[in-house]
Amino acid sequence: MMERVKVAVVGASGYSGMELLRLLLAHPHAELVAVTSRSLAGKALSAEFPRFRGVGNADLLAFSAPEPDAIKATGAEIAFLALPHGVSVQYARPLLEMGLTVIDLSADFRLRDAAVYREYYGHEHLAPALLKEAVYALPEIRAEEIRKSRLIACPGCYPTSILLPLIPLLKAGLLSNDPIAVSSMSGASGAGRKESVPLLFCEVTGSLRSYSVPVHRHLSEIGQELALAAGHTVALSFVPHLVPVHSGICTTIFATLRSKTGIEEVETALHEAYDSKPFVRLLGRGQSPDTKNVVGTNFCDIGWALDERAGRLILLSAEDNIGKGAAGQAVQNMNLIRGFSETAGLMNV
Amino acid sequence: MMERVKVAVVGASGYSGMELLRLLLAHPHAELVAVTSRSLAGKALSAEFPRFRGVGNADLLAFSAPEPDAIKATGAEIAFLALPHGVSVQYARPLLEMGLTVIDLSADFRLRDAAVYREYYGHEHLAPALLKEAVYALPEIRAEEIRKSRLIACPGCYPTSILLPLIPLLKAGLLSNDPIAVSSMSGASGAGRKESVPLLFCEVTGSLRSYSVPVHRHLSEIGQELALAAGHTVALSFVPHLVPVHSGICTTIFATLRSKTGIEEVETALHEAYDSKPFVRLLGRGQSPDTKNVVGTNFCDIGWALDERAGRLILLSAEDNIGKGAAGQAVQNMNLIRGFSETAGLMNV
Amino acid sequence: MMERVKVAVVGASGYSGMELLRLLLAHPHAELVAVTSRSLAGKALSAEFPRFRGVGNADLLAFSAPEPDAIKATGAEIAFLALPHGVSVQYARPLLEMGLTVIDLSADFRLRDAAVYREYYGHEHLAPALLKEAVYALPEIRAEEIRKSRLIACPGCYPTSILLPLIPLLKAGLLSNDPIAVSSMSGASGAGRKESVPLLFCEVTGSLRSYSVPVHRHLSEIGQELALAAGHTVALSFVPHLVPVHSGICTTIFATLRSKTGIEEVETALHEAYDSKPFVRLLGRGQSPDTKNVVGTNFCDIGWALDERAGRLILLSAEDNIGKGAAGQAVQNMNLIRGFSETAGLMNV
Amino acid sequence: MMERVKVAVVGASGYSGMELLRLLLAHPHAELVAVTSRSLAGKALSAEFPRFRGVGNADLLAFSAPEPDAIKATGAEIAFLALPHGVSVQYARPLLEMGLTVIDLSADFRLRDAAVYREYYGHEHLAPALLKEAVYALPEIRAEEIRKSRLIACPGCYPTSILLPLIPLLKAGLLSNDPIAVSSMSGASGAGRKESVPLLFCEVTGSLRSYSVPVHRHLSEIGQELALAAGHTVALSFVPHLVPVHSGICTTIFATLRSKTGIEEVETALHEAYDSKPFVRLLGRGQSPDTKNVVGTNFCDIGWALDERAGRLILLSAEDNIGKGAAGQAVQNMNLIRGFSETAGLMNV
Repeated sequence: MMERVKVAVVGASGYSGMELLRLLLAHPHAELVAVTSRSLAGKALSAEFPRFRGVGNADLLAFSAPEPDAIKATGAEIAFLALPHGVSVQYARPLLEMGLTVIDLSADFRLRDAAVYREYYGHEHLAPALLKEAVYALPEIRAEEIRKSRLIACPGCYPTSILLPLIPLLKAGLLSNDPIAVSSMSGASGAGRKESVPLLFCEVTGSLRSYSVPVHRHLSEIGQELALAAGHTVALSFVPHLVPVHSGICTTIFATLRSKTGIEEVETALHEAYDSKPFVRLLGRGQSPDTKNVVGTNFCDIGWALDERAGRLILLSAEDNIGKGAAGQAVQNMNLIRGFSETAGLMNV
Repeated sequence: MMERVKVAVVGASGYSGMELLRLLLAHPHAELVAVTSRSLAGKALSAEFPRFRGVGNADLLAFSAPEPDAIKATGAEIAFLALPHGVSVQYARPLLEMGLTVIDLSADFRLRDAAVYREYYGHEHLAPALLKEAVYALPEIRAEEIRKSRLIACPGCYPTSILLPLIPLLKAGLLSNDPIAVSSMSGASGAGRKESVPLLFCEVTGSLRSYSVPVHRHLSEIGQELALAAGHTVALSFVPHLVPVHSGICTTIFATLRSKTGIEEVETALHEAYDSKPFVRLLGRGQSPDTKNVVGTNFCDIGWALDERAGRLILLSAEDNIGKGAAGQAVQNMNLIRGFSETAGLMNV
Repeated sequence: MMERVKVAVVGASGYSGMELLRLLLAHPHAELVAVTSRSLAGKALSAEFPRFRGVGNADLLAFSAPEPDAIKATGAEIAFLALPHGVSVQYARPLLEMGLTVIDLSADFRLRDAAVYREYYGHEHLAPALLKEAVYALPEIRAEEIRKSRLIACPGCYPTSILLPLIPLLKAGLLSNDPIAVSSMSGASGAGRKESVPLLFCEVTGSLRSYSVPVHRHLSEIGQELALAAGHTVALSFVPHLVPVHSGICTTIFATLRSKTGIEEVETALHEAYDSKPFVRLLGRGQSPDTKNVVGTNFCDIGWALDERAGRLILLSAEDNIGKGAAGQAVQNMNLIRGFSETAGLMNV
Repeated sequence: MMERVKVAVVGASGYSGMELLRLLLAHPHAELVAVTSRSLAGKALSAEFPRFRGVGNADLLAFSAPEPDAIKATGAEIAFLALPHGVSVQYARPLLEMGLTVIDLSADFRLRDAAVYREYYGHEHLAPALLKEAVYALPEIRAEEIRKSRLIACPGCYPTSILLPLIPLLKAGLLSNDPIAVSSMSGASGAGRKESVPLLFCEVTGSLRSYSVPVHRHLSEIGQELALAAGHTVALSFVPHLVPVHSGICTTIFATLRSKTGIEEVETALHEAYDSKPFVRLLGRGQSPDTKNVVGTNFCDIGWALDERAGRLILLSAEDNIGKGAAGQAVQNMNLIRGFSETAGLMNV
């Protein structure tokens, strides 16, 4: 039997943290040794999350205060940080110094440029030196770098759904320079587990609404990664919407093909990029992904079509914002780093 | 007291039909004298729709078979047709010949060109001569023609949400010729009240999915009306999505301003078009409409923003697909035709 | 045209308050002259509730601080109090002294006995003398007293759905002394519009759960009113459940008929009580009410059946918890007090 | 590595069938060798259920016609029947004769008495001789008989949620003979995956309604099993409700304790029955189970309280109607029969 890696989840009281716990409690090669939450310290995991009652060590493990020394003392080798941006960085630094591998789900290490971080997040980055070391960890794109890294920046939920369809096309030079338009819908778990009137059931049910128009923070990492793929700046408009589902992101992208480029070249590029990747499922031309097929999983489903009348390529993707868009991708990265099967603990649907 | 106009609803078993009944039962100047449904003939209105029990004449009025002679015999002066496309036309012709005014909610009279109808709907139009006479009845745009018409083609639900924000800008020449991209979400009532596994609660709840990609039938009327407003063909891509709400459409539009055009000119055009219109509410720059504020009403709410990075104008609208997008607009048209206050029977929120 | 009565809504930031505003903005005989909310003072009504934009005087009327003198100065003759229990009483007293009629939606004046209030609400009643004067205002049961009163205690949402089916049967002596069992489900609006993690969309969607087992505060008023109807104490168990709808209460009651009593006598008692009442709809034997037929209305629908195997009468009711269970009933009481038609402003479905 | 048992799922196009497939595709000791559906024959499993794309052998395995010979020829040792009542029996007989073990999810083998079957299901039982052999397979109650049986009748969804709390109390003689009252709520998956207007999203969302009042078919098996536990007939009223969730049953039971019996004896009986059972979680006194903690799992959560005022014991349970109430329980039974760990393949939450 393969040895289990000892893991800690720092900041486990939100929806991504809960999803991480769900995945790690059942992971064949991971042992959950520490779960931290300042507000829940001392409480058993399954007392806060009754769903986990009787599962793994959820009745025995108690939340602890988020102290790096104490985390280290549990024997944890990997720390998942499910913390707000600006907070993650404060834990990442000491944990790295103590020799742990850090898999961060926040935005703190996604940008290569501290100035862009300041522009979008409104304050100085606290550890700009670490930005060079961090890997923007889309496993389908950067598996080799991820395997060698000790500081993993998991991509944001929206960016994952936007980058996976676009990167192969930009790398292959199939898109014109016309601005790309992206409309995404997300479930309410993306907005967090916090006291908030606009996120009450009665405010969200029956409601369809855009927000953060015209500039959402995720634009910063999307722009960074598209530019890296294309070799030049890529203009993109992005409008996210909050819709009444618990989880799931559905993204619709309008792009323009370079002249004399056909839909077949798009399909070739997508198949070359993803046919060997277990978590990207190419549904085919004219096929619409549906979030209900991916929620609770680590899959990103992709469909596409060419609108010949308007001369537009339409790309469609669906994922679970707290799955492939957060916790699932984090576990997939752990699998790569530790040499486990990439799909270990991630194939339950 | 103002006299009441006698009205008939032909085909009242679907969601738009129900909404029409709801509005007409409470309308101060309308008297519901006939409600037809072949499958429900003989059944009291409130027996089929228990919500209407005890309301107006819903306990007394029974569904009748949809026979033009019988409808005429009730004294009905106006017939609302809430029928599938291809069926409406078969009732419109005889009812018009008998002297009734016809307010059609189907697609049968929305297109001016029978060839475009055939292309999008897959069969020959049965009364192409009537297409010349019909008015594409967006009351905010064509009030004068509506007042004089006896054949009213109520716009589709998606088109209403797309045309209201765009027409003033195209008329004012503010948009470039770049293709416009539109992403819309609609509640399940838009898909109809019919036996269907994909529309079951369990298939729709928790599901976000696009459909009819890349060509939805509504593109035909959208293209017609945009071209009329602009004076030339307007390229537009449109992706509709089905989301888990009963009713409501949320539309997000990406367009490009003509060079040297600013957001202020957009705002001027919108205000000139709609400040005097009771059912279009301009929310302002950076404001996102929310379907929960318009469901059950005849309002269309509009917001906008300029994405300067990508050089894109973003237009946002929200309406009730069976309200302003269907039954509400139909009643608004009746109000115009009969000289009632435009808001009569439509201001309950 | 009938004169309009000037009304104030004190504490209008919650769901019952919003529903009151919705009803009063469209009421043919009411003029909304004051809307108070300490936290929203100065803000236009339609700025806080964009749904009301363009409706009645919602764009012009601003929230004011809840000061009795200022309320009086607006000319208000009736004050609706949509405040938490323990707070209502603090406004009721001065407003009554200034000559206003008070229609209270809280629990503060529902109990006749201050000791019972203390037992269930955990603190002394602040104006026990007023308890004698207040009317527990179920309009179908106490219309005459309501018409003469200046202090109206609107029944709770659950109690309304439980009392309406049971009172006529207890008055007629049809039920045995066996304890009655009641299971109710309520939409999340019943829990209030407040910052709260357990009421977040993600916590409520997909969740069915009971709460306040075995003693919910509403048991106090239910017990009081059942005892008044029966002439003796009535034992009753009550389990409320929170379910993922915005609004609506569905109540199921298990009672035992006195021996030699048949279902026909139940039906006679119900018809005698309610055939002349516009807002109670008797659906008939074996018929199940559905909240979707009553949400947004002032109706309470009632069905029933006899389970002969177990010897149990089953009573079924449905209402809107913020409609007939709160704001609708409050407006119905206003109609009675002012001599308006009982259904004025309440028949829109 | 433990050998895998070859299994077939007969009738896999409904929600319980889908859940069975989900569990069996990931089960460590099962190999899915046949999936039948007359209407889907020839189609790949993952083409019908895109959620399963890329999972196990879902891309390779195609639906086949439900022919017993063909099922046998696949090497299947166990056949799960996810068929309507009256149909299951037609497959059970030949499959048993061919030597397969049959795990039936329908009602066909739940009743010991063919006359009761006829009374509740309206037609003669087609194989009454098999009723003697079948085991009503609640694994927590009848593990020994299940291990030895070749014909497993999985309990109904509602009955599971009602029997688990009540059986230990009846066995211990703690309840009086007063009729028990049960109110349950179920998600729409319990009503099946079939073309039906009342099950459309728009008909179920926002709707709370009882149905099958006063006699639901499940009363027959509930009555049978309660009588076996108590040693005498047990009177029980049952009202099920349809509520807007995909899955989940929340059951509330009102029973009367025998005189001089206390809540402590209830607790002792429950703990003795279930402390060693992995899938029944006793939440404790005053604790309310929540379906969101059990949906997607094989757990049944139970809470309880004593309402001293009314002299009633209140029992509360929650389960997934297609999990512990159907497919999960079926897999649990397979685990028992084959000597696998009882929790194999069932601990993912």
